[in-house]
Order: sequence, then structure tokens, then C-alpha cells
Amino acid sequence: MTVEITHHAYGKTGVRLLRLAREEGRHEVLETMVEVRLEGDFLEAYLEGDNARVLPTDTMKNTVYALARELSFDSIEAFGWQLARHFLGSQPQVSKVTIFLEERPWHRLGDDGFAFTGGGEERYHATVTADREGTTISSGVRNLLIMKTTRSAFQGFPRDRFTTLKETGDRIFATRLEATWQYGQGILGEDGGVEALDFGAVRRRLLDAMLAIFADHFSNSVQQSLWEMGRAALETIDVIDEIHLVMPNKHYLVVDLGAFDLDNPNTIFLPTDDPAGRIEGTLRRG
Amino acid sequence: MTVEITHHAYGKTGVRLLRLAREEGRHEVLETMVEVRLEGDFLEAYLEGDNARVLPTDTMKNTVYALARELSFDSIEAFGWQLARHFLGSQPQVSKVTIFLEERPWHRLGDDGFAFTGGGEERYHATVTADREGTTISSGVRNLLIMKTTRSAFQGFPRDRFTTLKETGDRIFATRLEATWQYGQGILGEDGGVEALDFGAVRRRLLDAMLAIFADHFSNSVQQSLWEMGRAALETIDVIDEIHLVMPNKHYLVVDLGAFDLDNPNTIFLPTDDPAGRIEGTLRRG
Amino acid sequence: MTVEITHHAYGKTGVRLLRLAREEGRHEVLETMVEVRLEGDFLEAYLEGDNARVLPTDTMKNTVYALARELSFDSIEAFGWQLARHFLGSQPQVSKVTIFLEERPWHRLGDDGFAFTGGGEERYHATVTADREGTTISSGVRNLLIMKTTRSAFQGFPRDRFTTLKETGDRIFATRLEATWQYGQGILGEDGGVEALDFGAVRRRLLDAMLAIFADHFSNSVQQSLWEMGRAALETIDVIDEIHLVMPNKHYLVVDLGAFDLDNPNTIFLPTDDPAGRIEGTLRRG
Amino acid sequence: MTVEITHHAYGKTGVRLLRLAREEGRHEVLETMVEVRLEGDFLEAYLEGDNARVLPTDTMKNTVYALARELSFDSIEAFGWQLARHFLGSQPQVSKVTIFLEERPWHRLGDDGFAFTGGGEERYHATVTADREGTTISSGVRNLLIMKTTRSAFQGFPRDRFTTLKETGDRIFATRLEATWQYGQGILGEDGGVEALDFGAVRRRLLDAMLAIFADHFSNSVQQSLWEMGRAALETIDVIDEIHLVMPNKHYLVVDLGAFDLDNPNTIFLPTDDPAGRIEGTLRRG
Repeated sequence: MTVEITHHAYGKTGVRLLRLAREEGRHEVLETMVEVRLEGDFLEAYLEGDNARVLPTDTMKNTVYALARELSFDSIEAFGWQLARHFLGSQPQVSKVTIFLEERPWHRLGDDGFAFTGGGEERYHATVTADREGTTISSGVRNLLIMKTTRSAFQGFPRDRFTTLKETGDRIFATRLEATWQYGQGILGEDGGVEALDFGAVRRRLLDAMLAIFADHFSNSVQQSLWEMGRAALETIDVIDEIHLVMPNKHYLVVDLGAFDLDNPNTIFLPTDDPAGRIEGTLRRG
Repeated sequence: MTVEITHHAYGKTGVRLLRLAREEGRHEVLETMVEVRLEGDFLEAYLEGDNARVLPTDTMKNTVYALARELSFDSIEAFGWQLARHFLGSQPQVSKVTIFLEERPWHRLGDDGFAFTGGGEERYHATVTADREGTTISSGVRNLLIMKTTRSAFQGFPRDRFTTLKETGDRIFATRLEATWQYGQGILGEDGGVEALDFGAVRRRLLDAMLAIFADHFSNSVQQSLWEMGRAALETIDVIDEIHLVMPNKHYLVVDLGAFDLDNPNTIFLPTDDPAGRIEGTLRRG
Repeated sequence: MTVEITHHAYGKTGVRLLRLAREEGRHEVLETMVEVRLEGDFLEAYLEGDNARVLPTDTMKNTVYALARELSFDSIEAFGWQLARHFLGSQPQVSKVTIFLEERPWHRLGDDGFAFTGGGEERYHATVTADREGTTISSGVRNLLIMKTTRSAFQGFPRDRFTTLKETGDRIFATRLEATWQYGQGILGEDGGVEALDFGAVRRRLLDAMLAIFADHFSNSVQQSLWEMGRAALETIDVIDEIHLVMPNKHYLVVDLGAFDLDNPNTIFLPTDDPAGRIEGTLRRG
Repeated sequence: MTVEITHHAYGKTGVRLLRLAREEGRHEVLETMVEVRLEGDFLEAYLEGDNARVLPTDTMKNTVYALARELSFDSIEAFGWQLARHFLGSQPQVSKVTIFLEERPWHRLGDDGFAFTGGGEERYHATVTADREGTTISSGVRNLLIMKTTRSAFQGFPRDRFTTLKETGDRIFATRLEATWQYGQGILGEDGGVEALDFGAVRRRLLDAMLAIFADHFSNSVQQSLWEMGRAALETIDVIDEIHLVMPNKHYLVVDLGAFDLDNPNTIFLPTDDPAGRIEGTLRRG
């Protein structure tokens, strides 16, 4: 019997960084967690225990901190782009670099230039993938908790032997939105860099467009909301080609109070985490 | 050898509830997790397996939902107050009731009357304790993440054989604030109820007062900030008698880049969760 | 501009189940969390809010419980296999079904027939994928915490400007093993079912083989250990075709006690969660 | 208005340590997380920002590592005891020291002298409290998951307007046991130290005694089981004076399959985390 390796990769996860831009009267903070992943020709490390080509993951960590000092960037996307280029450029045995970055949002405390509060539970993320052919970048948000307390229904579904769900024309619809969007190659400047694009502004406009739809439209299903929200994102932001959405249906169950001679006119709910519906879809510019 | 029970209590934890107030053009949501704990004469359940006095914890859960429908309240404090009275009034074998409530904040999405986003990672809480002598109430917040990026120092400390820390006149100071305040008996109305007090407004004013100090003052230590912030709370809010603060020192370590021939003028930091300093104090109106 | 959906799927996550087999003098427990995911022709739900083909996710949940009662199975793999067939067979609009199952291990408490203790932090899982062409099954374990305190080194690696790591011939090597193996089509019985295979016994033999290598061999790198362990799995278990391993390197850092005039002969370590190395590889029978 | 501080304390949390005892052919590991808390005269730090008496929490961390190297100990209790003495002895402004320690269990992998697997989800802990009058020590376990699938009932309870629970003579009883026991002063050696006591052996015997009762006895309520288990602990281990038990009732709900024309003879259950019963009690040697 022979055994072969059909895929291998390695890197460093969980490299935490806060970069403080100290301007007169005002500081800007960017807090992120970085993961570096390398693919390439590392077979002799696996097969023979020969580390001659294995750049230590500790070095990857050091590189993140040193380049955070040396480079100029104002988004996790721009930082990831330059990190990917660095590893691809300096390590000939590497054929592909992937940089994952997750940002924790901080919000300014009032008008103060130096004080901040943590944002919500949501996290922003970016993935930069670079090989000898080119580089791609996607961005996203995860764990963005949103809820609408009416203008949501679920009716007209098929029933089988195991179906007990009642049709409802008015329900709570809550989700932890997960959205990932793919940038088109048009974002590249003449020098092949991405510094000219304000990734943060894109994210804000994109989320604003999706959340406006979420609040306004009448939802016949999570599926329909997903489509309407994703379409709004693609229509609003022309630098993205594709968006992938995952929308868990975090159920708020109407509590049956009949045993206590009480009605429940959709006012008393039991919030649940599990089980949850899970609806996903990928939308693409045609 | 004899063995005796010197303390016993029981109840229900994790009763999750969302109460929706459906007003014309606008919904209000209150999402909370409730815990009920009873003390009293339940010894025969322990010693003899006789459950004749053991109100099921399942009944406590049902009671939370039924009373959420029947009662009128606009804060977790007012709800907890009435829950405590209910159990003390209906169960003669009970000598003491404690109701713990934790609220998840929801924020209105723009101007929409029916759409919301989850708040930050902080949670609001309240504890109502009632026995045959009277009732007390405390409120608080936990996990409120705040950071100041300058105007914080730590100097002049003693050194022993194991001290390697350098003095610093400019550091990042970040904490997950935990604050619990005790209301005075003056909040009771003529009927002994608490409906007249706007607990949410108290919380907002109290936190605003503390966060203003956090941002503005020059901190010589977490201890000093704790004192100044707690004092501001007591000076601003006259209906509270006491405040207890816990302020973990979530360190942001300055990364040493010397090995790469780079300086680090307090701009590149490693955020850490553990280990953390932990400073606490209780302040009381004299 | 046109927008199209290039992928869509939906289902139910987090369906928790404990199935108790009540035998004379002895109970057997199987506790699992099930996820059902359907792909097929559901476009009108997204595009038009028409739910006529959308089997409710609530029905999927009910189906899990009802079939757990009706069917005969003794592993999550066999249960998932039958669940996948059920949905594919009963829903013509469905082209592909994926069932994810995660099992929480319970261990018998001594010789008692009815008492159990929770197992470790590890979880077993299985994924069954069925479409109109056929069915595949993979199994695995995640979060299996293992450590060796010697016979592990990392030397001979390349150095660049950012490399500060020292070579070491004796280090702690700890990981949270994640392993997923793919079964070959040979496991199917004449009726196309999988009931004849003892999946639990396969898992135990496979893990035993890998852990024996982990303990015994001298590790020149995580990469080498991954290869040796994966190869042992394929050599030991002939019903699997492929195995994918992820091995985070959970670093135990040697604490520098020099400032206190103390040596540290590899006895005092700082355990860390982040950052961590992450090594992965897929091995396949040639 | 005057404000005064009625309580204050500070320290370091989350100091993680693995101590490796390297013996010929066999290593022993002890992994723990330590918290140091000091009380004393630190008022001028709070009131005036004067740190002259504030031993840095960073020094506490260093002390844990340095003393882990210098001292001899074979349990978290013995290590905590010596840490407490160190801080009380070296810091005259300190009136009280509390050391909290939590141990992660590791189990030997087969017969190997150098390889280990992580234990279960349970954690062992100890608390040592020292002031100028004396020292006390308590130990415990938390998150010890146990279940019995029969020989458990809940009947004969009172019913009120909100009671819908059915009586049951056969239910699953699962809990995450939390136990804390207090050692008597008799454990002190002639020199006032605790080195002669094998704390790990005490814990094993105590847990074995409690789990044997849990498995064997017929439980009429969690309360009764708590009493029987706690009494067994005190009867078995004469060096402890008191034990405090918390036993959440992690409900496994019988799923109603009637809508599908299926019975459920106590074989199909829904495991839940919330809401949960919570039963506690403190038992003391009379």
C-alpha cells in the first residue's frame, strides 16, 4: 500500500495586534487578529522531518508586528494585501499565501479623541489570497445581530407527515448575519495596489443598504429577505462582484399561556439559540 | 458523627424572555434572562425525599412567562420586584426570594419602529432580594468594554526581587467594567412599590457620569480611576447608596521590535486577555 | 444590471437528541446534535417569496426525533445515512442532502448499568452527503487534546530578517487534534446500506493507531508527526480512503527566569492558546 | 456629601503555568491557572494616585513562575499555601492574601511516561486564604458532568395556578456537579505546613464516594441526592469539616411524538442547557 499527501498547508493563527495612530488631539485604533497560511513545496518536512524550507510560524508572527510598524495602511484589507505580497515575494518555495484578518470594532466615546467603547458582537473580516497568477480579496462581517418584530411571515409551505408548524402572518425575525463579498479586479490601482479604495466606507454603505431592506420590506421567508438584501448590496456597491450570505433563523417562540387562562397576542416570546434555521445563498453580478 | 445542613436554596436559572410592547407604529422590546431562587424550610426534601413543600422549578419558569403577560413593568428591576413579591406572598414555606435578571440591550435600527440591532457585549443586570422584613434592589452592568489610549500611567510603585515592570507615563488602559449599585429605600413609593423610578434613565446617567471621568481624567492607576468613577456615580445619582466596581486591567503590551531594528513609539501593541490585573472597590455614601 | 443566485441551500442546525436504549440491567446512550441541509430547486422562495416547495426547517427537526424513534441504528453514521435517504426520497425538489452529526461521548461510571460521566472535550462527528448519484460518508473527531512532554524538536529551519526563534531539541508538543476520514464505497452492504460496519470500533482503532505514533515517535516537526499519524491511520484501517488532519501547535513557552537568578531546565512553562501554529494535511491511499 | 471606600482589593488573574517534573523514564505534569488577590492598606492609591505601596500585579505574575521553580509541591493546594505565605510575609501593608488556583486534569496516554490526553471538562480548584490570624484552605471541582438514566423521580410536589409539570417516577437526572470542601485545621503539620496531606488522593476518594451514591441510590429529588452525596463525602473524609454542593438540574425532556402516531417509552429525549433547575446546599460536621 502506498500513501500520498494530496494537500498540505501551514501557518500561524491568532496573531493579535492593536495599531495606534497617534495624531495631534486624536488617536485612531485598529485592532485585528491575523492568520497567515502558506502553501507550497514543504513535502520533505512531512515525509522526512527536514525543516530546511519551513519558515517558522513564530517568524510569521514577528513579521505581522514588524510590518505593522513599517507599512502604511488604514484597513485590514490593505494590511492583508501587503502581508500576502511580502510572504509570496520573500519565500520562493511558497506558491500561495492566504491572509485572514478579523477586526474588532471600537467606537469613539463621545467626542473624545482618546477614549473608546467596544462595538457590538459583530466582527469584520477580510481574506487576501495571493499566488503567482494574481491576488483576490474578500471582506465580510459575521455575528451581526439584527431583529425585526413584525412584517415577517412564513406561509404556504408544503406539509408532510412530520409537519406540525402553524402558518403565521406575523412573526419575529432575528438573525446573526454573516456576509462575505468578493471584490472585482477593478479595485487595483495602476501599480497593482489597493490603497486607493476605502474598504471601511464600502462596508458601511453595503451594510446600510442591506439593513435598510431588512427593516423596510415585508419578508415572506428568510430566503426572500436574503435575496433582497444581497441584491441591494450588489446594486449599491459596484466594486464587488459577488456576495455570500448566511442567515440563521434565531427563533423567538410564542409562549403558549393557555394553561394559565391567558392569551398571548404575540407579546411574550421565548428566545432560543438552538435549534435554528439556516439559510444561505450566493449572489453574483450577471 | 452527625451531619447537618447549614444552608440550602433552590430555584430556576436561565429563563429567557422577550416581551414585546406593540404600540401603533412602534414596538418596544425587553429581552431578559431570569433566575428565581428560594430559601425557606425545605429540609424534608433533602433529608427524607419528601417534596410536599417543593414548588417545582418548572412552575417558576411558567410563572415568569405568565406574570410577564399579566403585569405592567418597563424595566427588569420593576419586573423582578413584582416576581419576588409573588413568590414570597404565595409560598408560606419561603423565607427569602432572590430574583436575578440580566438584560440584553437592543438598539433601534435608525428611525424604524420595528427593527433593531443587538447592542454591545455589555449586559445589564438587577438583583431583587425580598424576605419578611423588606426588599432590596441592586442594578448593574457587566462586560462594558472601554479603552483610553493615553492619559494613563503607572509609576512610583515598590519593587521587590521579582519586579521587572518598567515605569510608564503613557500607556493604554482598557477594561471590561463591572459595576453594581445599591438603591436606597427612598425609591419606594407610598404603596411600597418601585414603579415611579425610571431605572433605565438612572443607569444611563450613572454610566455617562462614570465614562466621562474615565475619558477625561489622567489616570495614575486603575485604583485611582475606580475611585474617581465611583465617586462621580454617587455624586450624580442620589437614589443609590453604594456602588461596587471591578475593573480588570486588560493589558495591551508594547511589542519590542528592537530585534528588527525598528522602534515602537507606543503604536504597535499586543492585546492580551490573560493574565490580567483585577482591581475592585466598594464606595458608599458617608 | 442583473443579479443571479449561483448557490443556495437551507436547513436546520442544532437539533439535539439523546437516544436511550433501555436494556435489562443496562442502558446505552447516544447523544448527538444533528444538522440537516438541503439543496435543490428553491429559487422561487428567494425570488418571489413563494414557499410552496420549502419544507419547513421545523419539520426537519420533527423528522429527526420521529425517525430516531422509528429507525434502528447504533452510530451517528448509520443514523445520518438513513436521515439523508429519507429526505432525498420524500422531497422530489431536493437534489442533494447533507447531514452533519456531532456526538458527545458519555462513559459508563464504573460497572454501573445506568450511570455515566461526560467524556473529554473531544467531540465525534460524521457527515453524510447524498444526491441522486450516490452517497458518501466521512467521520471524524475534533478538539482531542493531546500532549507529549519530550521527544519533540524543531531545528534546521530557515531564518530571515524577522526570525528570532531558537532551535530546540526538546520541547513540549501539544495539540487539539482534528481528524476527518472518508470511507470508501466498499463499506456498502448488498442492499446499499451501511448497517454492517461498526463505525465506533473503526474510530477507536484509528485513534489508537494515531495516538500510539504520537506518543512513540521522535517528532522533528508537527508536519512530520501529522504525516506519520495519518499514514498509520490509513495503514490500519482499510475501509477508509483518505484522512485530513489539522494540528494546531498549542505552544507551551519556556519561561525565562534569568531576571530572578533562576535557571529553567525545561520545567516551568507558560501555556498559551494564541497565537498558535496550524499545520494541516490530507493523505490518500495511492 | 462624603464618599468613603468600604472595601478594596486587587491582584492578578489568569496566570497560567505548567510545571513539568522530569523524572527518569517518566514525566509528571501539573497545569494550573493562578489568581493572587491582596487586601490591606492601599487607600492612598485610590484616593491620591500614590502607588508607593502597590506591588505591581506584574510582579505577582513573576512571583508565581519564580516560586514554581524554587518551591517543592505536588498539589495546587500546597503551592497556593506557600504563595499565600510569601505575599503575607513579604508585604507588610497586606492584611489578607487569597490565592485561587484551578487545575486542568491531564491523564497519562496508556503506559507512556511522556504522553498525555486532556481530561474531561471538569476542573479542580483550591482557595487558600491567609491573614495575620491564620490560614484556611478549601478545594473543589466544577463542571463535573454526570448522568443517571433511571432510578430518579420527582413526585408529590405542591401545585399552584402555574404548575403544569407532570409527576414522574422515572426520569433522566443529569448535572454538572460543583463541589467545594473546607479542610479542618487538623491538616497542619507541626511546622504549620500542609505538605504531609495528599490533596489529590483526598479529592479522588471524596469524588468516588459521592459518585457511588449518585449511581446507586434511588433519587426522589436533586435535593435528596445532594444530601446523600454530601453526607457520604463527610463520612468518608475526616479531614474536611464542610462541603458545599451546587447541582444544576440539566433537563433531558421527553419528546412528545404523539403527533406522528409514535409512542415514546422514555427513549427519545431533548437535552437542554437552559432553563435549568439549580439546587444547592452546605453540609457541616455536627
